[in-house]
Amino acid sequence: MNVSPQFEMRLTSFVLHVEEALEDVLGKSPLPAELTRPARLRDAMAYAVLGGGKRLRPLLVVESAGLFGVDFHYALNAGIAFELLHCYSLVHDDLPAMDNDDTRRGKPTVHKAFDEATAILAGDALQTLAFDVLTRETTHNDPAVRTALVRCLAAASGIGGMAGGQMLDLEAEGRFSGDKTPPPLTIEEIERLQRMKTGALLSACCRAGGILGKADSDAQRALDRFGRAIGFAFQLADDLLDVEGSAEEVGKAVGKDAALNKATLVSTLGPLAARRKLNDLVDDAKRALRPFGTRAEWLTACADFVAARKS
Amino acid sequence: MNVSPQFEMRLTSFVLHVEEALEDVLGKSPLPAELTRPARLRDAMAYAVLGGGKRLRPLLVVESAGLFGVDFHYALNAGIAFELLHCYSLVHDDLPAMDNDDTRRGKPTVHKAFDEATAILAGDALQTLAFDVLTRETTHNDPAVRTALVRCLAAASGIGGMAGGQMLDLEAEGRFSGDKTPPPLTIEEIERLQRMKTGALLSACCRAGGILGKADSDAQRALDRFGRAIGFAFQLADDLLDVEGSAEEVGKAVGKDAALNKATLVSTLGPLAARRKLNDLVDDAKRALRPFGTRAEWLTACADFVAARKS
Repeated sequence: MNVSPQFEMRLTSFVLHVEEALEDVLGKSPLPAELTRPARLRDAMAYAVLGGGKRLRPLLVVESAGLFGVDFHYALNAGIAFELLHCYSLVHDDLPAMDNDDTRRGKPTVHKAFDEATAILAGDALQTLAFDVLTRETTHNDPAVRTALVRCLAAASGIGGMAGGQMLDLEAEGRFSGDKTPPPLTIEEIERLQRMKTGALLSACCRAGGILGKADSDAQRALDRFGRAIGFAFQLADDLLDVEGSAEEVGKAVGKDAALNKATLVSTLGPLAARRKLNDLVDDAKRALRPFGTRAEWLTACADFVAARKS
Repeated sequence: MNVSPQFEMRLTSFVLHVEEALEDVLGKSPLPAELTRPARLRDAMAYAVLGGGKRLRPLLVVESAGLFGVDFHYALNAGIAFELLHCYSLVHDDLPAMDNDDTRRGKPTVHKAFDEATAILAGDALQTLAFDVLTRETTHNDPAVRTALVRCLAAASGIGGMAGGQMLDLEAEGRFSGDKTPPPLTIEEIERLQRMKTGALLSACCRAGGILGKADSDAQRALDRFGRAIGFAFQLADDLLDVEGSAEEVGKAVGKDAALNKATLVSTLGPLAARRKLNDLVDDAKRALRPFGTRAEWLTACADFVAARKS
């Protein structure tokens, strides 16, 4: 599960591309003359999106699309739509009424740096922008591909995906039942929560690569299997970081799960078994890519990257 | 500016169709077996969307599409996407950090009936669902039409439209400058704010009708002119209601603009001149529809409906 220097170099250059594409999309698309982008809202959106983040979601879109020789600029554009969606969810999850976090990526969260109303609106407008970007000719010249991408992103992020997963997470804290020590979730319930809250969007990134590449159903199935394993592995690595990492390294508060008495797979299985499971998931993800042969070199490296991350 | 009994009957039946379509879309689309729609989130979304509302946005989509003989079920489906987007914006605008409203359509607002976290998530997931609905084959069989609809909705509701307009509105209250009596907006600034906050989405509904009907550029221009006039008229009628209506009739708090010392066209022009301007806008909207002849009968009636509304 080590990341090669070649992958690190590729990643560094990729992150710069993503940053540039995000800057572009936040400020430069044309508006009718009588309209405006209110500066405060634009600044809050840029603050939420630029200058940080692993850019794992665009990476997965681009490397999945790479299996099929998709034009890099198409895939990058689709990838930043997934990143915008992800960033919106972070802004809203951090709100006082939600997880009430003050720090994200080592900086004050959006509602701390601006205010709550601005943070709500910035999240809202980032979600809208994500869908907007997917409809552009710069994402793909075939409207059937663009509409399939919108659908893929929406399915992963709505009530049956990310937003629903966040709701399950709040419920698991006993927020609405008034029960301060709610019964711990079962392993099946934890897995479902995580599959919805974070897994769905990560898997959708891999699926999006297949959509861009007009993958046949075998290839799409392989990507789906890879995406599921990666999504799960990501969450396990996240939970392990929450237990084993320091706030400085991770860039946000750690030990939150334990403080909230939140059941995770790490707390349920124990860290050793959790790490073993993480290794199994990475192996499974790699096996799913075998049919693609050497074309899957970089996507395979992404599996290691997800498991080895330190922040 | 009276609404005919025929139009009233048509509207009553239409509102039932919308209600049914909304119920359908909130509960029935398939999910992979291992996922779920958390009941609390589903209930909050349904609470925000069902059992109330004039359904003006789907009405405009359907009657605009009617100019081109578009299948009713296509247009209805597109229309409810616009309604879902509108409902999300109401849920978020009502939040304590935003306009802090306790009542909407004569009922407690979502964060009062549920809680703030649930209201934020319900709004988020309603926005996602709006885009999801537009990508379905039941909205149009041509993916180029579906992707154009997504684009149209996104452009109207993001930073250069509805969300940006809400930001301008908060700024006009002097929220971020710390200035308790901020300088009043000029007429141009008020018009821009309103064009973004409410006008953009209403105009987009009319444009969506043209997209569904594959309107030529002359017809699309006529619809755009109609949509602009209607959007403006709607806001004027709203401001007049805030001055002249009672909370019971309107279903939400009135007199808020004056209490917040908020500049509106009614406070700037005076109610008489504002009412005259409203009449001019309705006339202009109707003139825009002349090229469509008798096919525009119902859309013309919508212009009167917008101006004559009591809630």
